[in-house]
Amino acid sequence: MSDTKEILDAVRTRASLATADVATAIDACLRCVQTCTTCANADLAEEDVDELRVCAARCLNCADVCDATARLLSRPAYSDKLTILRLLEACVRACENSAEECARHARHHRHCAICEQVCRACIQACAALLDSEAFEEFQDRR
Amino acid sequence: MSDTKEILDAVRTRASLATADVATAIDACLRCVQTCTTCANADLAEEDVDELRVCAARCLNCADVCDATARLLSRPAYSDKLTILRLLEACVRACENSAEECARHARHHRHCAICEQVCRACIQACAALLDSEAFEEFQDRR
Amino acid sequence: MSDTKEILDAVRTRASLATADVATAIDACLRCVQTCTTCANADLAEEDVDELRVCAARCLNCADVCDATARLLSRPAYSDKLTILRLLEACVRACENSAEECARHARHHRHCAICEQVCRACIQACAALLDSEAFEEFQDRR
Amino acid sequence: MSDTKEILDAVRTRASLATADVATAIDACLRCVQTCTTCANADLAEEDVDELRVCAARCLNCADVCDATARLLSRPAYSDKLTILRLLEACVRACENSAEECARHARHHRHCAICEQVCRACIQACAALLDSEAFEEFQDRR
Repeated sequence: MSDTKEILDAVRTRASLATADVATAIDACLRCVQTCTTCANADLAEEDVDELRVCAARCLNCADVCDATARLLSRPAYSDKLTILRLLEACVRACENSAEECARHARHHRHCAICEQVCRACIQACAALLDSEAFEEFQDRR
Repeated sequence: MSDTKEILDAVRTRASLATADVATAIDACLRCVQTCTTCANADLAEEDVDELRVCAARCLNCADVCDATARLLSRPAYSDKLTILRLLEACVRACENSAEECARHARHHRHCAICEQVCRACIQACAALLDSEAFEEFQDRR
Repeated sequence: MSDTKEILDAVRTRASLATADVATAIDACLRCVQTCTTCANADLAEEDVDELRVCAARCLNCADVCDATARLLSRPAYSDKLTILRLLEACVRACENSAEECARHARHHRHCAICEQVCRACIQACAALLDSEAFEEFQDRR
Repeated sequence: MSDTKEILDAVRTRASLATADVATAIDACLRCVQTCTTCANADLAEEDVDELRVCAARCLNCADVCDATARLLSRPAYSDKLTILRLLEACVRACENSAEECARHARHHRHCAICEQVCRACIQACAALLDSEAFEEFQDRR
């Protein structure tokens, strides 16, 4: 198990988001940075790179959005819910794009199969945060 | 002048966003990564660091969101407008938070004055993109 | 357990570095990005922020170097050993700086205690890679 | 002209590196993040993507190392010369790899021609820093 929840609990702030949910989302985002970065690199080395262009492009976008999301979620003190809301929305969307394209290649490429699963876990973790009470006030802005 | 527009024009894709506007936004985001990173570092070294906590925290968030935004905007091929829309919204918001807090310290700290201006230029460049025709289809989702 | 080793093994390349060691280093780097980012944020929110300036500054540097290191290690195909060697050296050094400063505050601040441990684990994982046979050819350049 | 030097000069620290040289290196690194990110994306959209695999892979590594280098150079307060030395060395090497491969495609692809030039400017800016008096003490460790 990671230390993410434990260090979040050590930050002196009145968290509006539940640290357990935030920790799960951070860890899911960081896993996604890893697998998407490797999947895009693996795509470049495949014989059928021609078929994997979209996959590589989407995985790179997903890695960068997940990276920023993990970083902002890792800063509970002086955080801003609206920034995080928009970033989580961008993150879910980027992960959906990546998962969808990886799914098309999952039977032929093991890296795509793994990456799809990790992206789906990230979607779930971010969606859980977005559906939490903390974002209720923005319900009409989503 | 930067090469940003020129290299964007060299990408083989049917850009839905005008490359001149995208180039302006990318360059504004990268400038913001720079000044926000330095402003947060400068805050830590000030005698009144106590007063600059919020400034440092907001600048760090701003730098990370601007970094991801610059990266996604730099990938016109196989891009996804909805991901970019949410990211631009996150970026504008993060820049507003940073600009607002820097403004409070601008008279006492030169780094805050510079950072405020750069954040405001970034808000303007991102808002111009968001207001462009390319995002018209999402008008009701904003 | 993470999927890191499994996805690395799925990349079509003659890895010169053992994927098990690389996976350990990647995961350690990503953990370090997380804890260092949160530790710097937590520092800003402490009453004795005045004492924690150096800690925040060093943790921010450590997070950025670990991020880049995790990304490059996640791209085994078409990788360059000398770039990775220098990056691993930068990473070990940045983690040492961060661990050393966190250690000074570990008794008073739980986030520093956690961060110190995670930095030390990262040093160990990167040092193990640096000491591996793969980097033997650069022995005289270190 | 960018604000980089001006904001660096506003940081309360005894800079061991000349801010003019640091500012030049930061701006060169950020330009390199931009062009390398776009070049890798453009590679994926070319008919001869098969020939451009190495170019895309190297450009992605270059972008990430340049990003981290720009960030650490942007933090003059509480900085550590040895970390920066190793990072600059990694940066020069990553830029060389990228420039060399882009050069092979520069006649056929405008994005590679631009990217090569920007990488070479970054090599020059980082090498100038490495050759400066500030790193003299490490002369025997290079």
